Amino acid sequence: MKLVTAVIKPIRLESVCAALEKAGFTGMTATEVQGRGVQGGRTEYYRGQEYSVNFRTKIRLELLVPDAKVDSALGAILDAARTGPDGEIGDGKVWVASLEQIIRVRTGETGEAAI
Amino acid sequence: MKLVTAVIKPIRLESVCAALEKAGFTGMTATEVQGRGVQGGRTEYYRGQEYSVNFRTKIRLELLVPDAKVDSALGAILDAARTGPDGEIGDGKVWVASLEQIIRVRTGETGEAAI
Amino acid sequence: MKLVTAVIKPIRLESVCAALEKAGFTGMTATEVQGRGVQGGRTEYYRGQEYSVNFRTKIRLELLVPDAKVDSALGAILDAARTGPDGEIGDGKVWVASLEQIIRVRTGETGEAAI
Ligand SMILES: Nc1ncnc2c1ncn2[C@@H]1O[C@H](COP(=O)(O)OP(=O)(O)OP(=O)(O)O)[C@@H](O)[C@H]1O
Ligand SMILES: Nc1ncnc2c1ncn2[C@@H]1O[C@H](COP(=O)(O)OP(=O)(O)OP(=O)(O)O)[C@@H](O)[C@H]1O
Ligand SMILES: Nc1ncnc2c1ncn2[C@@H]1O[C@H](COP(=O)(O)OP(=O)(O)OP(=O)(O)O)[C@@H](O)[C@H]1O
Ligand SMILES: [Mg+2]
Ligand SMILES: [Mg+2]
Ligand SMILES: [Mg+2]
Repeated sequence: MKLVTAVIKPIRLESVCAALEKAGFTGMTATEVQGRGVQGGRTEYYRGQEYSVNFRTKIRLELLVPDAKVDSALGAILDAARTGPDGEIGDGKVWVASLEQIIRVRTGETGEAAI
Repeated sequence: MKLVTAVIKPIRLESVCAALEKAGFTGMTATEVQGRGVQGGRTEYYRGQEYSVNFRTKIRLELLVPDAKVDSALGAILDAARTGPDGEIGDGKVWVASLEQIIRVRTGETGEAAI
Repeated sequence: MKLVTAVIKPIRLESVCAALEKAGFTGMTATEVQGRGVQGGRTEYYRGQEYSVNFRTKIRLELLVPDAKVDSALGAILDAARTGPDGEIGDGKVWVASLEQIIRVRTGETGEAAI
């Protein structure tokens, strides 16, 4: 059982959802977040007066995924999250963590059956 | 040290908080999120024109929990998050991940003492 | 590859960002969340004043960090998130989880190269 988290451009949300659904992934949790990448912001002053941080609105998607389907989920996300043929700066990050347990509240089912 | 994450119906937030507090869990972090479950949305067109995704507002709760208290936390959440005697579709998901470190900012305490 | 998550006071966000940037960390994801700590929903006293806690707005920061830089990131966060010389109740929590994979969407780079 894995948790796949993707931070993507809001403009790509619909195509990422569509690609995921086509690949058989309907369940997901989305949060509006503010992000910065390697390009960061610009430090005006530190321990001084002004400090401007260039955060941009992103969407953070979380997907609970069975082990055997992680690559399929990643493929769908990466393909649909990329902007244009070569991608663009700020297109996003995806990461995968292992989980110890998943439970469906309604039924109490656990493990991959709960996804 | 575990991180218990629960995505629940907003209408159950108060009873989940009350159940957790009764079980001795006061610390938590809540985020308003948008979620879809197994029932998903409905694909109108993919790589076509319209695409409608039925996200619903949920609450994502995070709890840092000592290993020995995970079952107690899960019991409180599951019991209080379920809608009606048999539960309802959309009642939520709960997952557990293992953590390597926890630190309380104020004191610098680490590990389970930091919870 | 680690995921460092910090829940801090909003008023410390700018100094935490500045400290992180000074330590070489520009990438991060921030979410506005609602939090409660050990003091929970009860009325407590701190330095002679009544202190009643329900949920308070906090900022949840996530940082993807190479293994070798975790201590540096934690140092920057802890130092900058603490309020006053002794810290204050509610200053926050930081936790570290291990990740299995990280991918940069634009290039498809994986692992620490993707951070
Ligand atoms: N190290 C990081 N830790 C946590 N979140 C990050 C990190 N880097 C980027 N993010 C999140 O991902 C979003 C998109 O990042 P971005 O795609 O700009 O990464 P990048 O490494 O700078 O890649 P690129 O060079 O393609 O822009 C950021 O706005 C932020 O939300
Ligand atoms: N696979 C998933 N990955 C991430 N989040 C999920 C996933 N499935 C569900 N969620 C989150 O949990 C919320 C509630 O899901 P829900 O209870 O509908 O799950 P379900 O498996 O469809 O169960 P049920 O059949 O009881 O409805 C969703 O709105 C979403 O936020
Ligand atoms: N057990 C927990 N699980 C998840 N989040 C927590 C937990 N405890 C605290 N938090 C988050 O961290 C924020 C700050 O917590 P806080 O600093 O009050 O922790 P504390 O343990 O009560 O420490 P202090 O005694 O210094 O106040 C909370 O508002 C909440 O968002
Ligand atoms: Mg970038
Ligand atoms: Mg459902
Ligand atoms: Mg507290």
